[in-house]
Amino acid sequence: MAVRYELIKQCSQTGARAGRLHTPHGTFDTPIFMPVGTQATVKAMSPHELKAMGAGIILSNTYHLYLRPGHELVAEAGGLHAFMQWDGGILTDSGGFQVFSLGPLRKITEEGVTFRSHLDGSKHFLSPERATEVQMSLGADIIMAFDECVPYPAEHDYAKASTERTTRWAERCKAVHARDKQALFGIVQGGMFKDLRSMSARDLVELDFPGYAIGGLSVGEPKELMYEMLEHTVPLLPITKPRYLMGVGTPDCLVEGVLHGIDMFDCVFPTRVARNGTVMTSQGRLVVKNAEFARDFRPIDSQCGCYACRNFSRAYIRHLLKTEEIFGLRLTTTHNLYFLIHFMKDMRQAIIEDRFLEFRVAFWSHYQR
Amino acid sequence: MAVRYELIKQCSQTGARAGRLHTPHGTFDTPIFMPVGTQATVKAMSPHELKAMGAGIILSNTYHLYLRPGHELVAEAGGLHAFMQWDGGILTDSGGFQVFSLGPLRKITEEGVTFRSHLDGSKHFLSPERATEVQMSLGADIIMAFDECVPYPAEHDYAKASTERTTRWAERCKAVHARDKQALFGIVQGGMFKDLRSMSARDLVELDFPGYAIGGLSVGEPKELMYEMLEHTVPLLPITKPRYLMGVGTPDCLVEGVLHGIDMFDCVFPTRVARNGTVMTSQGRLVVKNAEFARDFRPIDSQCGCYACRNFSRAYIRHLLKTEEIFGLRLTTTHNLYFLIHFMKDMRQAIIEDRFLEFRVAFWSHYQR
Repeated sequence: MAVRYELIKQCSQTGARAGRLHTPHGTFDTPIFMPVGTQATVKAMSPHELKAMGAGIILSNTYHLYLRPGHELVAEAGGLHAFMQWDGGILTDSGGFQVFSLGPLRKITEEGVTFRSHLDGSKHFLSPERATEVQMSLGADIIMAFDECVPYPAEHDYAKASTERTTRWAERCKAVHARDKQALFGIVQGGMFKDLRSMSARDLVELDFPGYAIGGLSVGEPKELMYEMLEHTVPLLPITKPRYLMGVGTPDCLVEGVLHGIDMFDCVFPTRVARNGTVMTSQGRLVVKNAEFARDFRPIDSQCGCYACRNFSRAYIRHLLKTEEIFGLRLTTTHNLYFLIHFMKDMRQAIIEDRFLEFRVAFWSHYQR
Repeated sequence: MAVRYELIKQCSQTGARAGRLHTPHGTFDTPIFMPVGTQATVKAMSPHELKAMGAGIILSNTYHLYLRPGHELVAEAGGLHAFMQWDGGILTDSGGFQVFSLGPLRKITEEGVTFRSHLDGSKHFLSPERATEVQMSLGADIIMAFDECVPYPAEHDYAKASTERTTRWAERCKAVHARDKQALFGIVQGGMFKDLRSMSARDLVELDFPGYAIGGLSVGEPKELMYEMLEHTVPLLPITKPRYLMGVGTPDCLVEGVLHGIDMFDCVFPTRVARNGTVMTSQGRLVVKNAEFARDFRPIDSQCGCYACRNFSRAYIRHLLKTEEIFGLRLTTTHNLYFLIHFMKDMRQAIIEDRFLEFRVAFWSHYQR
């Protein structure tokens, strides 16, 4: 099998677990945070810098690559790994989330989705078959079934019809996907309805995917509701398979996701806020662009071992951000990714040593916002 | 003395010469190209990357740093080297060129220049004394006298008055500058008039600076006229002192500058065109952003050993540029700087082996544009 999950340690008091994900491009410790490289590049970073800071799997977006440079071109280059010179793991989403986000620019039928490009208005069609074929061309280690992310809020009727269709689509994805070197994950939907989450999980588990994502969370609902959905849904998934919570990546949600037994996360959060001048530290967030740091010659985080913190001051980084220098974005991005990757390592270590609950208490006792 | 020039080899047929520049932050082979780091950062690059590709001295702009973050702040950080974590050489310009470029926003008197910031319209005053003090705060290895760059074209009368004032200003800079660890260079002006270039060179040599820049060239005049001015001016400068041609950095002008005996160059050209998607190769320039490279999976220059060429294809770099990804700008900038730095090394080697004229013939035989 292309991708295999190995359970190393189950927390004795919570759902948290430490494991390993075996892929054709390496074995990665879980729980893991996957940096997002939407357009075949993690914004501002080189693949060698990502590797050096301990990144294992990155996520890339099928919708964007399908439009630019086109999946055939990526295939000609030898696939996404060769194109972007990343020899670690890659996961591609199905394009579904982006296409559905286009709002009035898209139309859904049972067959698939017709949409217009946000770039030039050109007309396109993605179906479960097409999305899977595109992802096969890109050649990621893990690809995702084409789904509809149920919007929040949604009526039960709509959520039910959508979730049932997502299951039918997952079946169609599976039918065209037959490649041993690539794992196709199913995506559990169901909105904020426990009965639909149960239905979705049951139906997808029946289809026997090598891994399961939980989609449709972190879409605007209160965090408590997201945690409730996780608490309900994760136990419905097989313990032998990896579990991936899509689009989640703030430290608080990572802790709670891990608590409920999630193994994989991705989010644009650390890289996006970095470019706005916000950095994460062991003491909470810091808007390093703010005037208060103009003459602060300390590193972002004196506890941190990243390239930015080992070399540069808050004052210098603030200067770079204020003057809109690219190197400023490189430094804040470097720091935030390093911070989250090491945050996950710390959580994993806590699970291994069966002190995850203590880790969580300590985290919440000083977490701001 | 802070900065000392050591002549290693004089070309037997041309003015070209190979030497070494000894500074408090290292000894650097000349002729040398100095990358421009306007705002205490060479755009898109880290100081460690610059070092790794063989950059020796970089240039930073007094005008920009004076406005943001302010020279007092840089001094508090321990000077420019500490602020930006660059342990190689630094040269700062005097701010004169930028201030004079402000056009209607500035007013010149014998005392100095009153101007309004291009950022917020705030009023400022730079004089020879002030510009020198600001540069002393920044702490570069080489600082420049405050001059007026005679515009092109200019009347002889205006050019004469301006050049004479520049000499008086140079004297005033020298009077306030007394720091052994920092070298103050004089700047020869005189517009496109040989008699004024002679006058300027004679007067400045009289003042005995540790190095001389030639300013007021590459300001819109035909290149032949620039070469004529170089041919006339360089022999008027002492052979024991380094010679710096300001604002010049295209391969053709570098070759001709070296031919006439120039040791130091700086220019935003390689970094600026890189950000517009143009790269230099041994076969001429290449607009890697162009559609023709969409499926070109070769490196920018198969002869090149830079990070970009060792790892990435034209197709990938074009994709990054088209999608406005920061990493694309990093790669083209890396390539162009590496290319020019190694171009200078090749020229130096040719001088050492007394085959510079052959190098020049070979260069012109395949140079495009």
